Amino acid sequence: FRQYQPFRHRDTYIRVSLPAVCFVWQIAMVVLFGVFIRYNEESDAHWPEYKKKQNITSDAENDFYYRYPSFQDVHVMIFVGFGFLMTFLKRYSFGGVGFNFLIAAFGLQWALLMQGWFHSLDYNTGKIYIGIENLINADFCCAGCLIAYGALLGKVSPVQLLVVTLFGITLFAVEEYIILNLLHCRDAGGSMVIHAFGGYYGLAISWVLYRQNLNQSKHLQGSVYHSDVFAMIGTLFLWMFWPSFNSAIANHGDGQHRAAINTYVALASSVLTAVAVSSLSHRTGKLDMVHIQNATLAGGVAMGASAEFMITPYGALIVGFCCGIISTFGFVVVTPFLERKLKLQDTCGIHNLHAVPGMLGGFISAIVAAAATESVYSKEGLVSTLGLEGKFANRSPGTQGGYQAAGTCVAIAFGLVGGAIVGFILKIPIWGDPADDNCFDDEVYWEVPEDEETIHPVLE
Amino acid sequence: FRQYQPFRHRDTYIRVSLPAVCFVWQIAMVVLFGVFIRYNEESDAHWPEYKKKQNITSDAENDFYYRYPSFQDVHVMIFVGFGFLMTFLKRYSFGGVGFNFLIAAFGLQWALLMQGWFHSLDYNTGKIYIGIENLINADFCCAGCLIAYGALLGKVSPVQLLVVTLFGITLFAVEEYIILNLLHCRDAGGSMVIHAFGGYYGLAISWVLYRQNLNQSKHLQGSVYHSDVFAMIGTLFLWMFWPSFNSAIANHGDGQHRAAINTYVALASSVLTAVAVSSLSHRTGKLDMVHIQNATLAGGVAMGASAEFMITPYGALIVGFCCGIISTFGFVVVTPFLERKLKLQDTCGIHNLHAVPGMLGGFISAIVAAAATESVYSKEGLVSTLGLEGKFANRSPGTQGGYQAAGTCVAIAFGLVGGAIVGFILKIPIWGDPADDNCFDDEVYWEVPEDEETIHPVLE
Amino acid sequence: FRQYQPFRHRDTYIRVSLPAVCFVWQIAMVVLFGVFIRYNEESDAHWPEYKKKQNITSDAENDFYYRYPSFQDVHVMIFVGFGFLMTFLKRYSFGGVGFNFLIAAFGLQWALLMQGWFHSLDYNTGKIYIGIENLINADFCCAGCLIAYGALLGKVSPVQLLVVTLFGITLFAVEEYIILNLLHCRDAGGSMVIHAFGGYYGLAISWVLYRQNLNQSKHLQGSVYHSDVFAMIGTLFLWMFWPSFNSAIANHGDGQHRAAINTYVALASSVLTAVAVSSLSHRTGKLDMVHIQNATLAGGVAMGASAEFMITPYGALIVGFCCGIISTFGFVVVTPFLERKLKLQDTCGIHNLHAVPGMLGGFISAIVAAAATESVYSKEGLVSTLGLEGKFANRSPGTQGGYQAAGTCVAIAFGLVGGAIVGFILKIPIWGDPADDNCFDDEVYWEVPEDEETIHPVLE
Repeated sequence: FRQYQPFRHRDTYIRVSLPAVCFVWQIAMVVLFGVFIRYNEESDAHWPEYKKKQNITSDAENDFYYRYPSFQDVHVMIFVGFGFLMTFLKRYSFGGVGFNFLIAAFGLQWALLMQGWFHSLDYNTGKIYIGIENLINADFCCAGCLIAYGALLGKVSPVQLLVVTLFGITLFAVEEYIILNLLHCRDAGGSMVIHAFGGYYGLAISWVLYRQNLNQSKHLQGSVYHSDVFAMIGTLFLWMFWPSFNSAIANHGDGQHRAAINTYVALASSVLTAVAVSSLSHRTGKLDMVHIQNATLAGGVAMGASAEFMITPYGALIVGFCCGIISTFGFVVVTPFLERKLKLQDTCGIHNLHAVPGMLGGFISAIVAAAATESVYSKEGLVSTLGLEGKFANRSPGTQGGYQAAGTCVAIAFGLVGGAIVGFILKIPIWGDPADDNCFDDEVYWEVPEDEETIHPVLE
Repeated sequence: FRQYQPFRHRDTYIRVSLPAVCFVWQIAMVVLFGVFIRYNEESDAHWPEYKKKQNITSDAENDFYYRYPSFQDVHVMIFVGFGFLMTFLKRYSFGGVGFNFLIAAFGLQWALLMQGWFHSLDYNTGKIYIGIENLINADFCCAGCLIAYGALLGKVSPVQLLVVTLFGITLFAVEEYIILNLLHCRDAGGSMVIHAFGGYYGLAISWVLYRQNLNQSKHLQGSVYHSDVFAMIGTLFLWMFWPSFNSAIANHGDGQHRAAINTYVALASSVLTAVAVSSLSHRTGKLDMVHIQNATLAGGVAMGASAEFMITPYGALIVGFCCGIISTFGFVVVTPFLERKLKLQDTCGIHNLHAVPGMLGGFISAIVAAAATESVYSKEGLVSTLGLEGKFANRSPGTQGGYQAAGTCVAIAFGLVGGAIVGFILKIPIWGDPADDNCFDDEVYWEVPEDEETIHPVLE
Repeated sequence: FRQYQPFRHRDTYIRVSLPAVCFVWQIAMVVLFGVFIRYNEESDAHWPEYKKKQNITSDAENDFYYRYPSFQDVHVMIFVGFGFLMTFLKRYSFGGVGFNFLIAAFGLQWALLMQGWFHSLDYNTGKIYIGIENLINADFCCAGCLIAYGALLGKVSPVQLLVVTLFGITLFAVEEYIILNLLHCRDAGGSMVIHAFGGYYGLAISWVLYRQNLNQSKHLQGSVYHSDVFAMIGTLFLWMFWPSFNSAIANHGDGQHRAAINTYVALASSVLTAVAVSSLSHRTGKLDMVHIQNATLAGGVAMGASAEFMITPYGALIVGFCCGIISTFGFVVVTPFLERKLKLQDTCGIHNLHAVPGMLGGFISAIVAAAATESVYSKEGLVSTLGLEGKFANRSPGTQGGYQAAGTCVAIAFGLVGGAIVGFILKIPIWGDPADDNCFDDEVYWEVPEDEETIHPVLE
């Protein structure tokens, strides 16, 4: 497998497959939502009755008000953050932001169902009851698939991306169930379940889909001045709203508060070390936009799993410090190495921004959890922060640390194995993907305006 | 009327008219605010006293905290959402985002007054007392005029736009009073009062201002690569924050919660069907940026009036499903038809994004309201969601449904008649509008930087 | 001093200095955070215990929920608002948004420490306890330095900018302590402590760093079409979120509510007068993007200090009205005058957007405070709004007004003197700043993609 196919005809005609997939899957969503999805007690019109019954004194106690601002920030990260981060290529900005839009819009529906079955299903009624927290989790779930898209950017068709999303969401829901429910890990910001999983999932797919003659598209595999500025929109909205990402589903009160602080300082620290390593890696110290656009975010990824923990602000700074270095180093050294030696083409460098920092974040959370003490957390705080309640009440912090590490490995394993399988499915020559000399080009799937001043130099 | 005026001299000198209108109207605003506008009890320094008197136990009960996050999202939709959506033309991005800024900044002041007189006037003191909800409503009111601007984009002068806004806000306040207060319709997200009204208002103006020789500006009536990416910023901020738009002034608690969920899923569904129809409408299945930028939003428009209702998540999906199809179909077929047969030039295609989905949204709300039952809503929920209180306590859901439909018709009628009248006012040749061969060109009203690589191809 | 140095060799090699400064300072941050910074009682895991002890009944009373939405808006203003506002130059967009990112990321860490020592230090434990309000204040503190960057844009190296930030934050914390604690001024939105200080700080630095032959870079000192559209992203996010900026640390309840309303209407008013004056200043009434990008914001700057006061909505309109005129007039007349006569080069015109409106805002707050009466504010409201509590309980509103004016002068003095000193430090020829014919060019500090269609015209 993975051998060179120089004469395979690549037909990028998607007029049947794309509409068919969109219509059929959307109709399936309507039917499944009809059967399964209902409002939960906080979004149902029975809320005034529920409020009285539960002695809730104020509408402000509706979870909506605790989480909606964070939800909207996460929503911006998914659609503008990820979307614009992928506009950096000179002639694939439509595909970057447009396909991101498409797969997230499908993914969040499928995620509401998949996560609902695993987490919010009422076995008495057979219904999934949704509220604001489900919307946040659905967005999170999409993030995993969008990370994977980063590795594939410019090399796959929208139909393939929808397949990647269908399987990605499914795998995500299963691994999340294993990690959060069975292993009972804590992962507020998804270092393991989102970033490590999504990163390795995308890398595995990209590895299977290796294109030997991708250098035939080399003239399009870079940025132009303004496409780099567009990408900074993505970077900044991801960077700014990452505290909301990591705190969105944390515990009310100190949990959300602390998660936001930890992420805020970790990200700041990443910026300085990413700049430092970027400058060091150039002959006269010039900065590289690729590093600024990506490695500055590594601290947010790595803080995900321990965002809620009492890692202390300087602990968070150290996490950001190290991950900024590691991530930039990855862009300078590891990505070219992977492409040359491992035949792994990773368009956006998700290995350095998501896979590795996500994995590190998981292991950091293991250490921080294992080091937790009652004096630092208070008795009640330890129980609620580490989740040592119910049938997990007897777990010690040390044991919890072990489970955090195990959860990280589960996420990576799901990503690698799942990605490899999906990769093989995508090799079936029916998906309308572009030929090697046709990658990174919006002309393939978009009506592109005639734009003489931009096209000519590219064609020359 | 509407006949061809080939030799009319078009003088785009606005150095007197634009400053005069801005200064005079702004001074009028100062005077009128001075006479009428005051802080309400939640934004006045007497709030601590008021709190004690009303036995309010926490500052968190100040409406500010229930609505401010949604307000800011709506604010972003008005200025960045609508503004950047209109940057798609190759040489009218300054006018798109800049005039949008101007008319919204004027409109919101006038709206505070107009809506205040109709809704928040205290007849004892003769004052309008404003708080956060008034700011949201003022932004909503601007949205109606910005929608109308979409039909006129590139063909009118800023002075004309201010006239469109002055009358548009006035008409809006009246139709809103009729629809929400007299007919007592429910329209949380403004399908009828904002989108149907604004859409038909703009279309009627544009129809009166028909330009027979607009094809003389044809070389400027398209996008370039990066202007399409700019427009995606507008699209995405509209799309992401639409749940806030539809829930911003919904009832506290379950009302806002449910409106956000319904809009979230309806929008997701629109994306998939818009993509499907866009692909179907091209020979080899390529996507068209115009559809992705616009039709993906149709679900949000159509969900407006029934956002608060118990339409169920799958009901919302169906609404988005249908409107995504109808809207894209409109861009492919109806807009060219309107231009050829009805002599109606609609630059942004607001017919397909606002007029029709808004109208449909109104009728959908009629059906959903008519189908409401006490078992689904609970007794208390039915009263508060459909607003069957006070002198409307005896209305049945069925009757309410009838009024929802009537309200939609009122909105359309106001838009069409008001727009026609305003259109004739705008035909008076004193407003400095451009000639037919001078449309869609920022050079007319802006100092444009010399930018050789972008200008040359356009001039060729 | 300030004499012409035509033959001084300018070495822009920063491969040692930039990484060294980033690493050393970031390590210092880690150490200082380790020694000093801890979570406060609302972000610490002991919160459930604290809640019980203080009889707090709901997590919604955690300050996080009062301020987090405003914090995120401020965060967007700092990174996207200021960052994109500085992308307007044709070949300095990377530097505009990228260095803004770098210095804000460093600045907020240093600000947490500096402001912490002055405001949040617990003398018993020697620790600084931080929560959401500290994060907002740290962002505010960065704003001062980013304003200063506006005057220096394109003419300094990133290492110099870090030095500007280090000293800027330090000076900020001291002047803020004097103004807010010793003089006990009220300055919710920072007209004096942020804008007047930051503005004069940047102007003084720029004055010392005067470049006699800057016209050698004149071909790069303008915008291109799309860079102006990018800058509008910055303008709009600043404009839209300014109500959050001015209300972020205002009093809970009516304080935040009123600050948002005042800022909202003041900004709207600025837009109309800025447009009017911009049109008046051109021969045929064309608008200038520089004015739209900047002067429209002047109302927000000037409302800062009196945002919380009962200035009334029409008072806020008047403030915006006047400042829109003054600011636009500044861009048309004063900035060219300053450059010719005072040898003061102010790339972004911060004199007109921050220095003067900030100063005016301070003096306006003096008048408004002096005019405060118990009948308008209520007894309790007057005390809490003007802060006439504790050892300041005997101050009359008139006296408070005098202190407001004094505080404004302190801010300006700190800016001018501090800026002059920092300017001389920056003249030491070790910082890698560009030569006069090399300014406003990203090529100096960034790896810029080869982008034929954009570079060629510039080189011609």
